[in-house]
Amino acid sequence: MKVNNLPDVNYSLDFDKDLADSFENFGFQASEIYKATKVCETMKKQGATIFLSLTSNLVATGLRPLIAYLCKKKFVDVIITAGGAIDHDIILSFTKYKHGSFDNNDLELHRSEVNRLGNILISNSNYVLLEEKVVPVLKHCAKNNITAPSKIIEEFASVLDDENSILYQCKKNNIPIFCPGLIDSAIGLQSYFIKQQNIPLIVDTSADLLRLGRIVLDSEKTGAIILGGGISKHHTIASNILREGLDFAVYISTASAFDGSLSGASSSEAISWGKIKEENTRADVKCDATIAFPIIVRSLHKRGIL
Amino acid sequence: MKVNNLPDVNYSLDFDKDLADSFENFGFQASEIYKATKVCETMKKQGATIFLSLTSNLVATGLRPLIAYLCKKKFVDVIITAGGAIDHDIILSFTKYKHGSFDNNDLELHRSEVNRLGNILISNSNYVLLEEKVVPVLKHCAKNNITAPSKIIEEFASVLDDENSILYQCKKNNIPIFCPGLIDSAIGLQSYFIKQQNIPLIVDTSADLLRLGRIVLDSEKTGAIILGGGISKHHTIASNILREGLDFAVYISTASAFDGSLSGASSSEAISWGKIKEENTRADVKCDATIAFPIIVRSLHKRGIL
Amino acid sequence: MKVNNLPDVNYSLDFDKDLADSFENFGFQASEIYKATKVCETMKKQGATIFLSLTSNLVATGLRPLIAYLCKKKFVDVIITAGGAIDHDIILSFTKYKHGSFDNNDLELHRSEVNRLGNILISNSNYVLLEEKVVPVLKHCAKNNITAPSKIIEEFASVLDDENSILYQCKKNNIPIFCPGLIDSAIGLQSYFIKQQNIPLIVDTSADLLRLGRIVLDSEKTGAIILGGGISKHHTIASNILREGLDFAVYISTASAFDGSLSGASSSEAISWGKIKEENTRADVKCDATIAFPIIVRSLHKRGIL
Amino acid sequence: MKVNNLPDVNYSLDFDKDLADSFENFGFQASEIYKATKVCETMKKQGATIFLSLTSNLVATGLRPLIAYLCKKKFVDVIITAGGAIDHDIILSFTKYKHGSFDNNDLELHRSEVNRLGNILISNSNYVLLEEKVVPVLKHCAKNNITAPSKIIEEFASVLDDENSILYQCKKNNIPIFCPGLIDSAIGLQSYFIKQQNIPLIVDTSADLLRLGRIVLDSEKTGAIILGGGISKHHTIASNILREGLDFAVYISTASAFDGSLSGASSSEAISWGKIKEENTRADVKCDATIAFPIIVRSLHKRGIL
Repeated sequence: MKVNNLPDVNYSLDFDKDLADSFENFGFQASEIYKATKVCETMKKQGATIFLSLTSNLVATGLRPLIAYLCKKKFVDVIITAGGAIDHDIILSFTKYKHGSFDNNDLELHRSEVNRLGNILISNSNYVLLEEKVVPVLKHCAKNNITAPSKIIEEFASVLDDENSILYQCKKNNIPIFCPGLIDSAIGLQSYFIKQQNIPLIVDTSADLLRLGRIVLDSEKTGAIILGGGISKHHTIASNILREGLDFAVYISTASAFDGSLSGASSSEAISWGKIKEENTRADVKCDATIAFPIIVRSLHKRGIL
Repeated sequence: MKVNNLPDVNYSLDFDKDLADSFENFGFQASEIYKATKVCETMKKQGATIFLSLTSNLVATGLRPLIAYLCKKKFVDVIITAGGAIDHDIILSFTKYKHGSFDNNDLELHRSEVNRLGNILISNSNYVLLEEKVVPVLKHCAKNNITAPSKIIEEFASVLDDENSILYQCKKNNIPIFCPGLIDSAIGLQSYFIKQQNIPLIVDTSADLLRLGRIVLDSEKTGAIILGGGISKHHTIASNILREGLDFAVYISTASAFDGSLSGASSSEAISWGKIKEENTRADVKCDATIAFPIIVRSLHKRGIL
Repeated sequence: MKVNNLPDVNYSLDFDKDLADSFENFGFQASEIYKATKVCETMKKQGATIFLSLTSNLVATGLRPLIAYLCKKKFVDVIITAGGAIDHDIILSFTKYKHGSFDNNDLELHRSEVNRLGNILISNSNYVLLEEKVVPVLKHCAKNNITAPSKIIEEFASVLDDENSILYQCKKNNIPIFCPGLIDSAIGLQSYFIKQQNIPLIVDTSADLLRLGRIVLDSEKTGAIILGGGISKHHTIASNILREGLDFAVYISTASAFDGSLSGASSSEAISWGKIKEENTRADVKCDATIAFPIIVRSLHKRGIL
Repeated sequence: MKVNNLPDVNYSLDFDKDLADSFENFGFQASEIYKATKVCETMKKQGATIFLSLTSNLVATGLRPLIAYLCKKKFVDVIITAGGAIDHDIILSFTKYKHGSFDNNDLELHRSEVNRLGNILISNSNYVLLEEKVVPVLKHCAKNNITAPSKIIEEFASVLDDENSILYQCKKNNIPIFCPGLIDSAIGLQSYFIKQQNIPLIVDTSADLLRLGRIVLDSEKTGAIILGGGISKHHTIASNILREGLDFAVYISTASAFDGSLSGASSSEAISWGKIKEENTRADVKCDATIAFPIIVRSLHKRGIL
């Protein structure tokens, strides 16, 4: 094995240099951040259809306005996420969450009607607010036979007017949001109450398959930026089986591969499944996305990609 | 703080003693295994409705026959899982997966038409087999307006005849399987092909809400054993909000809390949300479920609970 | 790539079967436990010199009597550990630790003069006891020019009379304990106080190099069972560079490889360094050792190796 | 519990803002980065003696010049590290490492005489170079009865002339480097060969205890920045027991608390031990230090602390 031609490990002390660039041959995960930035740049420059996959919790953080900005700038073409992401985005179009601590006393929080999401605190009143916004829309969907999750989500977007909302920006910029597990959310809880009233709501997750399939098949190239794991990650890579795999993939995750979970599976494993092409450009960053993704987005901005 | 009354850390060298029992005051995660065993025993003895939540990957392992056995023995009352779990259970009713290595070369595997799931290998031919079994059932569901995932899954079960199948045992023993993300699976891929043929399949995930809600509300007590994270975990604990929380919870997971993910969230966090009752009995085991759960099941068997 | 010849993933529901054996082709980390058991069996049967490496915290748990038993049975030939391991083993020869919780309030504990080690609680009084036992021995070592950590540890052992003590069993059975970081411990703190009194204590960590090197070089084969990471792990594998690597290695760890730490490095990485031979037998178990190692030891006992 | 007074979760899209500042109320680990930056700023402004603890592997990365810079600027007062850190710093004063991949084939690497450290590659020739530089110094130490690791390390520094070297900058700026596990390293291997020649080298780790103790006790306040775990972390916090704990602590780590390891233990746990004061300012960042620490250092630079 020839190693002489490999780049040296190095680092510049120029503190004004783009952080991701300074990570180029830094070693360990810093290097992976650089690599991820390059993969994102390349997928955009080569005109790939870009899928952004994210878990619900991330929408409760500062990533929400950042992702809304990516949608506004049409950097992403498709979003695939989980039900809670829709909950959070709607609520946060009207109010703010609080910044607490991982060590808050959960019993006291419960008695104060406050829910903890890591170090973020969400009052029960926020879910009352969600109910107010969501129930009329769900009833409208039931009445008008709007059944596909992506279409129901567009209906939610129509009651929002927030530049920092992902739903708002996606609707405005024709970016579909796929959410195969939509019902597993506070919206799902409201759906339950609606169905108890015999209102014929249908959430037909199969209804989005053709829409998603068309996007996958109509693309010359596809790339995915995958923040976290779960159903959002799997749906993103699995839908790309239709075209024999993604051309570009960036995984940002804290999960491990040793337990065989999809959440922790490497981008290499996805090649065996035809979820990522044999010929590909990819990066795996092991880091909380709240740290890693802003670094990458800033760098893309500095490169003029955004 | 009085610590004198706490039990001593200790361990018996009696190798014939039940392993979980020998872990009682062992320290670190061994103790949590013991605690989990006790919580499982208690939830059963107190007549709680027992929810078993699991991620798809676990059905590809030796846990499949073990869980089928728990269903056969009516130890569990409800299963909540992800789409891939249904794929694996159906395929494995007809064939076997292969035991490979985490280090297998993914490029070579792809060229050999073999997919890697951690250290488990699954030939593409298995998915051809799945197609054969699944497509007629999906068409039957489309024709007969069977739209709820739990009902579609029962239809799949009707073509199986395998004592070690979770679907088979659940159908035989009237244990519903809820799967809010059913479409995110190989079955979802077949659904896509069916819908391309204009066959009017509907997978209405809202259709199961009333069924699940009724079980939650009709129970005097509820307990959950949660293997892994993702949509299965969230749906299990979130559905118990209807009754102000689970009375008993066992979490077995490898995910961490620091990134705010639901998969890594502690059972304590769930108290703030009303997903677990303030008064509760619970355990959090940080371990791959393929190791931890068999220890617990063996111990329950030894205690005469199974 | 030929996968047909690989074993099937399977599991026996025979609850009386040895647990590790039942894990043979279970998948994920359960399989690694089986593999680890086989590697341990093989290294013993082939007459390898067996190194057991462990972190300090593990001696505070139920693993202490288990490891003492392995020493009593002469299953292990060398122990390599960190300073705190010696602290704990001495203290626990006279008293017990308490079993608390990971969630204990650390501020309250501090005010109660109780130290927390995960879910294990250790009163300050235990360290007073340690001082009583250790100071005379250190003075004796200073006076008699006993400077090698392994020799100082043998002096500590001479004041112990506990079947469950690792130091006691090692001394009795001529098993050296190497501890290159001995001074980083409560014993180190006592050494500090002694040196303040101008007592000429010397802890010459280089003094053990020849003794350890001789063992490594005199062995026909070497094997290592490595519980956790840190200096104990590195010293174990690095010392085997002298003979171009270990023939057998079992890693049991919860650390990850992505941050380039030695603690998380795979046994494969050690091959590049000549710390493990190219031709080798090895297993990497990702699991808390308090769970994994008792399973392995029980299985070895059942196989008649112990 | 009053949550109204807590800050809102928020994020500014101003891409020119200091990254750490933009993380202030971002949520999850991003917020912890901000907190860590503030703790570092505060410990410096309050004149605390600053301990920097780091694992060996980090010196092989771009962190080496960054830490050398912190020493040059006298931001840190004491360094506590592991043996390999000294190896890497000496070698890198004369040559460069190569940037490879976590997936490099370890067998091929071994045959090419290249060692892998995560995604960093180190030729065997580098260790030959180390031998050349180190052996004369060790012999000099043996001859002149230089036995304390911190003093031996200063002797190594005297043969270096590299602005980016931690040893060089520490010697120049009177910053002691403590290394209780010095012998567990390639330097240790050379020590072995020297001792085989009956050269009376002594590496007396107890010899540094008084020097370290004096620094701890003479400080009005102490703060620690702890990158990674292991002996470096423990020695740093344990030595501060002498003054009843650190006033300030920043932990940057990827290890988990669930297995009771010191490496994964939270800064809260250290309070119970009196390793961190009850009244304190601290942050725990769960992230690879190669990503987290450069963000913090840049921010300190922007704040004019460096």
